[in-house]
Amino acid sequence: MAVNNEMTAGFLRAAYGGESMAHMRYILWGEIAQKEGFPNIARLFKAISYAEQVHANNHFRVLGERKGGHAVSADAIFGVGNTVENLQGAIDGELFEVNQMYDVYLNAAKYQNEKDAEKSFHFAIEAEKIHAQLFKMAQDSAKEGKDIEIKNIYICPVCGHTVLDEAPEYCPICGTKREMYKEF
Amino acid sequence: MAVNNEMTAGFLRAAYGGESMAHMRYILWGEIAQKEGFPNIARLFKAISYAEQVHANNHFRVLGERKGGHAVSADAIFGVGNTVENLQGAIDGELFEVNQMYDVYLNAAKYQNEKDAEKSFHFAIEAEKIHAQLFKMAQDSAKEGKDIEIKNIYICPVCGHTVLDEAPEYCPICGTKREMYKEF
Ligand SMILES: [Fe+2]
Ligand SMILES: [Fe+2]
Ligand SMILES: [Fe+2]
Ligand SMILES: [Fe+2]
Ligand SMILES: [Fe+2]
Ligand SMILES: [Fe+2]
Repeated sequence: MAVNNEMTAGFLRAAYGGESMAHMRYILWGEIAQKEGFPNIARLFKAISYAEQVHANNHFRVLGERKGGHAVSADAIFGVGNTVENLQGAIDGELFEVNQMYDVYLNAAKYQNEKDAEKSFHFAIEAEKIHAQLFKMAQDSAKEGKDIEIKNIYICPVCGHTVLDEAPEYCPICGTKREMYKEF
Repeated sequence: MAVNNEMTAGFLRAAYGGESMAHMRYILWGEIAQKEGFPNIARLFKAISYAEQVHANNHFRVLGERKGGHAVSADAIFGVGNTVENLQGAIDGELFEVNQMYDVYLNAAKYQNEKDAEKSFHFAIEAEKIHAQLFKMAQDSAKEGKDIEIKNIYICPVCGHTVLDEAPEYCPICGTKREMYKEF
């Protein structure tokens, strides 16, 4: 994998930064949900934290040959609140990625004809759409003081596709087989 | 925990970004070390990845009440190479944190009388000194095509203190008891 244009490379680095920070705050917010008595919301945070890791790793690998140190500028959500508040932060972050960040990065990668970056941004934006919905569902439940009722959560290790209850035979985003999905 | 001054808050956010990205690339570089037949170096990457998570969480928690989205500017190392090369990236990143980033952030937190930030930066810089040494030791070994010979790795879950073979009775950086250390 590779990237040739410096603008797309910069967007990949920014997206790597954003995904790394999202991964990290979801771990922390998941621990808070666990302590507040929402074990399933905690599991959702943990699973989606892994999906963000998949995205970060994809971006990092596309940048593979651009070694060395770089200043990275990325947006992140901050705040350690209760689970309803933390889920609002998660929703805001996911919707920002869907409607602004990845929307523009994907367009730029296409414009600069960067196929590997385009794929990496495409994988991410499709997963983030689902994340925003799942966090909204979790918040609706947490607002009523109730945990979500879910079975397992499945994450595609190639694109971060996130699905409840059962993994599909093939990932609808990247085609990976059911057996490869990681279960949470 | 809290922070009052915007400059120190900005440095905490930058450090959160830097730690989140270090955490992420150590996971990835650890997987490469595993594939190259260095399972102990892989374990070292995984353990230190957890130490960076501790640092990121500490910074995030000090920022606790500063909710919302912020642009974060942080330095990061990129490059997917072989294990000797990846360890050079790790050494460079740790030494940058010790000699430049945390050195200056710690000084600024003291200057602005931000006690919680000072503690969070102090915890990090002390651990990073050890990380730089451990990665250097691992690289010396990998250069000769050999894995490192280590038993367990122990990480303090409060400050990220990293030690080989046996956890101390009390963490020398933060005083946490031996039983709390996480084993890798
Ligand atoms: Fe993501
Ligand atoms: Fe997401
Ligand atoms: Fe997929
Ligand atoms: Fe660190
Ligand atoms: Fe470190
Ligand atoms: Fe400690």
